[in-house]
Amino acid sequence: MLLYKTIGLCVKPTNDDLSYQLERITALLKSLGCDVLYEERAAEYLKTTNFCTREELGERCDLIIVLGGDGTMLSVARSLSRFGKPVIGINAGRLGFITDLCQEDIGARLPEMLAGQSICDERPLLEGIVLRNGKEIYRQLAVNDIGISHGRAGGMVDFLVYVNNQQMCCQSADGVICSTATGSTAYSLAAGGPILHPSLEGMILVPVAPHTLSNRPIVLPLKSQIQIELLDARDAVAYFDMQEFCDMLPGDRLIIRQAEHRVTILHPIGYDYYKLLRQKLKWNFMPKAG
Amino acid sequence: MLLYKTIGLCVKPTNDDLSYQLERITALLKSLGCDVLYEERAAEYLKTTNFCTREELGERCDLIIVLGGDGTMLSVARSLSRFGKPVIGINAGRLGFITDLCQEDIGARLPEMLAGQSICDERPLLEGIVLRNGKEIYRQLAVNDIGISHGRAGGMVDFLVYVNNQQMCCQSADGVICSTATGSTAYSLAAGGPILHPSLEGMILVPVAPHTLSNRPIVLPLKSQIQIELLDARDAVAYFDMQEFCDMLPGDRLIIRQAEHRVTILHPIGYDYYKLLRQKLKWNFMPKAG
Amino acid sequence: MLLYKTIGLCVKPTNDDLSYQLERITALLKSLGCDVLYEERAAEYLKTTNFCTREELGERCDLIIVLGGDGTMLSVARSLSRFGKPVIGINAGRLGFITDLCQEDIGARLPEMLAGQSICDERPLLEGIVLRNGKEIYRQLAVNDIGISHGRAGGMVDFLVYVNNQQMCCQSADGVICSTATGSTAYSLAAGGPILHPSLEGMILVPVAPHTLSNRPIVLPLKSQIQIELLDARDAVAYFDMQEFCDMLPGDRLIIRQAEHRVTILHPIGYDYYKLLRQKLKWNFMPKAG
Amino acid sequence: MLLYKTIGLCVKPTNDDLSYQLERITALLKSLGCDVLYEERAAEYLKTTNFCTREELGERCDLIIVLGGDGTMLSVARSLSRFGKPVIGINAGRLGFITDLCQEDIGARLPEMLAGQSICDERPLLEGIVLRNGKEIYRQLAVNDIGISHGRAGGMVDFLVYVNNQQMCCQSADGVICSTATGSTAYSLAAGGPILHPSLEGMILVPVAPHTLSNRPIVLPLKSQIQIELLDARDAVAYFDMQEFCDMLPGDRLIIRQAEHRVTILHPIGYDYYKLLRQKLKWNFMPKAG
Repeated sequence: MLLYKTIGLCVKPTNDDLSYQLERITALLKSLGCDVLYEERAAEYLKTTNFCTREELGERCDLIIVLGGDGTMLSVARSLSRFGKPVIGINAGRLGFITDLCQEDIGARLPEMLAGQSICDERPLLEGIVLRNGKEIYRQLAVNDIGISHGRAGGMVDFLVYVNNQQMCCQSADGVICSTATGSTAYSLAAGGPILHPSLEGMILVPVAPHTLSNRPIVLPLKSQIQIELLDARDAVAYFDMQEFCDMLPGDRLIIRQAEHRVTILHPIGYDYYKLLRQKLKWNFMPKAG
Repeated sequence: MLLYKTIGLCVKPTNDDLSYQLERITALLKSLGCDVLYEERAAEYLKTTNFCTREELGERCDLIIVLGGDGTMLSVARSLSRFGKPVIGINAGRLGFITDLCQEDIGARLPEMLAGQSICDERPLLEGIVLRNGKEIYRQLAVNDIGISHGRAGGMVDFLVYVNNQQMCCQSADGVICSTATGSTAYSLAAGGPILHPSLEGMILVPVAPHTLSNRPIVLPLKSQIQIELLDARDAVAYFDMQEFCDMLPGDRLIIRQAEHRVTILHPIGYDYYKLLRQKLKWNFMPKAG
Repeated sequence: MLLYKTIGLCVKPTNDDLSYQLERITALLKSLGCDVLYEERAAEYLKTTNFCTREELGERCDLIIVLGGDGTMLSVARSLSRFGKPVIGINAGRLGFITDLCQEDIGARLPEMLAGQSICDERPLLEGIVLRNGKEIYRQLAVNDIGISHGRAGGMVDFLVYVNNQQMCCQSADGVICSTATGSTAYSLAAGGPILHPSLEGMILVPVAPHTLSNRPIVLPLKSQIQIELLDARDAVAYFDMQEFCDMLPGDRLIIRQAEHRVTILHPIGYDYYKLLRQKLKWNFMPKAG
Repeated sequence: MLLYKTIGLCVKPTNDDLSYQLERITALLKSLGCDVLYEERAAEYLKTTNFCTREELGERCDLIIVLGGDGTMLSVARSLSRFGKPVIGINAGRLGFITDLCQEDIGARLPEMLAGQSICDERPLLEGIVLRNGKEIYRQLAVNDIGISHGRAGGMVDFLVYVNNQQMCCQSADGVICSTATGSTAYSLAAGGPILHPSLEGMILVPVAPHTLSNRPIVLPLKSQIQIELLDARDAVAYFDMQEFCDMLPGDRLIIRQAEHRVTILHPIGYDYYKLLRQKLKWNFMPKAG
């Protein structure tokens, strides 16, 4: 009856004590007959010295459960997408866009999800490569977004954007964001980008505080290859989900394209993307009362 | 050698005298061995009484040439998309997003385009249906956008949006725009929507001046069915490419979905979508000079 | 002890039954020794035939109390600003930006406010004059905003803007808003305008969905004279607080300038403009919890 | 006849050769009977070893001429505002918002400006003070803007904003800009702030890519005291005209208030603020041609 037997547990790095919550999840998993493997941080909370590297989790588990926020999910998804194992996000606090299983619901929901009653949501990742003098100096994945930002010295970043080797535009801006649909409700949205429905095979290119006032976000096919050539900046950095970074120098190029693997996120039955938007973005739902 | 032999000529309604330009196009077409049919307005310019209805053009022609601006193209595309005949837009003045053949280029470009050397660009249309008490009272196509706007009495329009019968949000706004990729550089852009690459199978839902400040444009799959239920408005109207209109009452619903047919626009070889964006939107291309 | 003895009562037009609330306010006022005069609508609720016109209220009362929402306050302030009598707004439902006395607080607050313990907030009004062929055809005041909007036929409105007889710009847009600081949290904000602190002697000019993407809101000194010349529109209307309207034809001019009188709004002691902003605009106040 | 006799010359740091232009300006000034003092960089171009510090220029000169762009003007104005000497900006390349005298016009314009025929434009400066544990660790002026930005490590900056010691809001954003009217056409505009007319005694607070989507720019009286308390950031920096920087730690406070001195910029007769806006922001002026 169990579709997923060996379960890996990852937890967000935090000062909060998540041991009670982890114990509850662990007990539930074991009562269902699952084998549970822990990442180091989770093992610490549970006071066991028996833990695996993230890589081992990817290899040995049938499914990964992340207790944390969207940030932890991003990190786990980047590391584990190549293993093709599905991920469930249980939020440790605020509801997240992708950590959408609430702790009060795990008793009711987790058993049915492990039995296969869930909504499979395949989300693409992006891969970014930084080239210096034509040679790769850095490569990293991202679930939300890859971009270039100014560093400490502030000021504008000047860059050229090419799409499939066609020049698109030259911009002076605080930075530029290339976001997936998953990332469209995160940094890209704060910078003025549109929300992109996850079933749409697209990515968004959003300038941050662009000097040319007629610059606008543009949605491109996910299969496009973006190339951003850094022309000038006092201090610039390429970022990957705002969790991984690579310094860039004028003349460096950042290539962004769809990654080879996707990550599969499992949602509970009844998952409603639009309800999540309304809740997280504080949209009115019912007509205003006078 | 001619891929398109019978050519229909449409022209924009204007006070400017376009007869010289029409004569030039006609002479060129005839010299290539084409048969030319005229819509009424074009016939007037050419002082011939021999003209066809737009419908007859759709049935009898192999290709339609529009001399005008994007507005004329929209109107022709709405009427003729069901005939499946390709359209070429020659701009009569300013370069347009879809009337992208300049008059100075027709001598060089039109012969090769009629011989089949062109870039075929299939653009989807939307179909909108207004329902009152559950019954259809109006139906119309749009190439750019379908939406609801306040009428003369101004003020907010209150409406509920459903996507594939799931409630998405409730908004109070000046109006709402559902735009195709083609329309994404028109009204939708002015209202804060993103640019949508034409090869992306999406449509954009953009609130105009929304009362809820966290409302944002959202890009949805083109195959989605949008339903907008008008809750309250002093005075509201559904529009189709801002050229056709239908008054709406509270309780009316506007259904928007992909239309059955697409329109094929032919571009000259060398057509560059990004260059068009840069020119029309006044994007800097070359790095700023100090 | 009473600074204000004769009190006028105005109430918002609504289908809700406000008689209980009006009776409570009336009883409180009488217990304090006030004479109370009613506008027609308020008299109806209280089942008395003894009512005054708004004009008589302005002449005879020392202070006007408005039970309603911001919309009712705007209407009363437009009518009564020339009488120079202060106004208190008690909200009948949702907290408003200027109807900021909550019903649960009136027992505690109203007595002290009538005794002079209140915060006096003088808000300027704008006056708009529509000229046709150089002759005045309409004149109206506004507390929030004066602007031009498209009518039913939709589409762009083309206009020239002059500031103190200097040409500022030419715009194609859905419309244009000239807003006071008071109006800066209303329609102007929805259209992308900034919030303007009430103590700042400025007004904001905001284009709605402007065709020229580099157009931006501009804040001008309150003593400026704005002139908007309508160049072209299928159908255009000048509005005043979105409550009064005047149709405009191409060639018509709309002159906007500070009105002769201001309106004085009384707030309870402890009134906090920034708290109001946070509540109404759903700004986070406390740092996010994880 | 000369209102200003001793003239200081400053020039922008650049790789371009500005010696011809400097020689022309110097020759013109001497022909008018002026004494000319050079800042080091200008002296280098003119191959003289006779130069003054910026401070000496401020003390000894009646007027300072800056050859460069807006950036050079900002730097000079920050250093010299306390000396109360007027400044003329001659652009070395592109027209600037405050370096608005073009080189082709100096023959005609400079003599009359030095004779007192000019438009005096007094622009306020801001002063920013960084406090750590309640003690001042840094103090700097700004003509355009003072703000906080993320450093290299990217990510959100969390901060509390107080206005005149009243809490206004808590924000998570890329950063925050406090801009003068002068700065309102620079970085603040790129981040979505409004244009603020220079005669308006206001300053703008603009969040950059704010996480709370209902956050908006707010215009406050120039006499307000802004206090920004840094709550959390991986890496944050206070900037002053994006030319001077001070690292900030969580708990640090940035106080921003009007500076003691203003800078006086002289414009040629006929200076037209709105024309400058149109030119620099590429606003259409004349109605569109079809």
